[in-house]
Amino acid sequence: MHLPALTQARAPLTREIDVVNEHGERETISIPAERALTVYVDKQELVTLMTLGAYPELLVLGYLRNQRLVRSAGQIESITVDWEVGAAAVKTRSGIERLKERTARRVITTGCGQGSVFGGLMDEVDAIQLPEAVLTQAQLYGIVNAIRLQESTYKSAGSVHGCALFRGEEMLIFVEDVGRHNAIDTIAGWMWLQDEAPAPGAERPSPAAGMQGGDKVFYTTGRLTSEMVIKSAQMGVPVVVSRSGITQMGHEVAQRLGLCAIGRATNRHFLCYSGAQRLRLQPELAGAKLRAAA
Amino acid sequence: MHLPALTQARAPLTREIDVVNEHGERETISIPAERALTVYVDKQELVTLMTLGAYPELLVLGYLRNQRLVRSAGQIESITVDWEVGAAAVKTRSGIERLKERTARRVITTGCGQGSVFGGLMDEVDAIQLPEAVLTQAQLYGIVNAIRLQESTYKSAGSVHGCALFRGEEMLIFVEDVGRHNAIDTIAGWMWLQDEAPAPGAERPSPAAGMQGGDKVFYTTGRLTSEMVIKSAQMGVPVVVSRSGITQMGHEVAQRLGLCAIGRATNRHFLCYSGAQRLRLQPELAGAKLRAAA
Repeated sequence: MHLPALTQARAPLTREIDVVNEHGERETISIPAERALTVYVDKQELVTLMTLGAYPELLVLGYLRNQRLVRSAGQIESITVDWEVGAAAVKTRSGIERLKERTARRVITTGCGQGSVFGGLMDEVDAIQLPEAVLTQAQLYGIVNAIRLQESTYKSAGSVHGCALFRGEEMLIFVEDVGRHNAIDTIAGWMWLQDEAPAPGAERPSPAAGMQGGDKVFYTTGRLTSEMVIKSAQMGVPVVVSRSGITQMGHEVAQRLGLCAIGRATNRHFLCYSGAQRLRLQPELAGAKLRAAA
Repeated sequence: MHLPALTQARAPLTREIDVVNEHGERETISIPAERALTVYVDKQELVTLMTLGAYPELLVLGYLRNQRLVRSAGQIESITVDWEVGAAAVKTRSGIERLKERTARRVITTGCGQGSVFGGLMDEVDAIQLPEAVLTQAQLYGIVNAIRLQESTYKSAGSVHGCALFRGEEMLIFVEDVGRHNAIDTIAGWMWLQDEAPAPGAERPSPAAGMQGGDKVFYTTGRLTSEMVIKSAQMGVPVVVSRSGITQMGHEVAQRLGLCAIGRATNRHFLCYSGAQRLRLQPELAGAKLRAAA
């Protein structure tokens, strides 16, 4: 498969600003960068994404993937990002069918969920078959610890969400953005560019090919909204872990999919909201019983 | 002015689910409700909002206001919400001009910012003149304390954002939703229905009339994104306070507007990001100097 040609547009991820604190003192602090990236597909304006800007080309690729506007990276010839004009020019090999029609409906999703999910995304949920996979409690603790140790824009500037993809407790990629929907889209774009044989027992490669999700775990610092659950499932990732909680729609979709949704994962505490059969409990690792906030 | 006729659709704000914790124990916890509300304007589908559902009629009214699709509550004859079908039927008195055209462009904003801000919103920012207003550090501490004491879905179920409108340190309304863009829209809708003489020195009442924002303070638990700042300014509220931080766009817009943006407001700590001339510092109230996280 021909992979798309991507620019590697770079821009600073933080900026310093002057503030006044409660003691009346001037301080200089860092805040995350935030820029507008307008996406043009074959010269037609599609959407404007507000992003930290760490991996704009992967973000655009993953956005097109998660919106189901393209079925494989091979359909894209090139993605050219120019921060001077805040534009991403996507060139497809043979166009996108009915682009206008497919992007006409608008659903505004929860909180940090992606702002706009084009109609029809939900329709595909029931078609998703998640591969068998089990995460052990020890691996879960390894994931939480890896995130704790991860250097991040969040630590230096706050106000961003982080997402990561794990194989067991091995972190494969960590992405931050001002909107976590961008972070997961970026990971989806990155997966499409990885070459990997299907994991044993995994579903046959989807037309999307790229890295399979069956033996992966998706981590997010943000809430498990329906959209985060759906996007994880679309990437074939059967386990999601969050530092935060879950919304009702997120819970309903996770149960429908049999996806293992784990939240409130900090230190040794966690809550498994659905798909507990995919989690191999090792309560002896949990230590003394302290009632942590649910 | 004829105020719109609103239903008062009610639905439970939380639901109980069973989870498994790190000790392998089953627990029952509450999570916030989350429902789809599809908005029809004069029988034309406009958008689907995912919401907690506490004040759906005010949410729809404020959404139409903040999207600048209607200029006053008087343009709306009725808003009828039916949770059975998850629909809000908006009946206008004389239609909305160029509705299709005005809702055609899509901007996906940051994180918890409203998912989709229809094009042209930014164009209006420079036209906004915020009234003079000063918040004292004592009032700011009063606001933070009032939020701390507020009973909330967040305390019982987590995973929601809270927004509130204050006059000085008096809380006028507190709204939570799964997306904080919904919470601020709900407050905007509520303000439109309040009858109030303009505060002394406030701008002449906008065509929107309703409650003026000049002597108000807007509080949000979430980040100060460009959109939260813009919406506050559109409501004529010159001071915004957040428990969280600020994004670059939020900072730029606040500075452009001379809006007082205060973040990281917990206990006695805060950072004033812009418009410090509107904040009357009283450092003697801050207590001993502990370096809190910026």
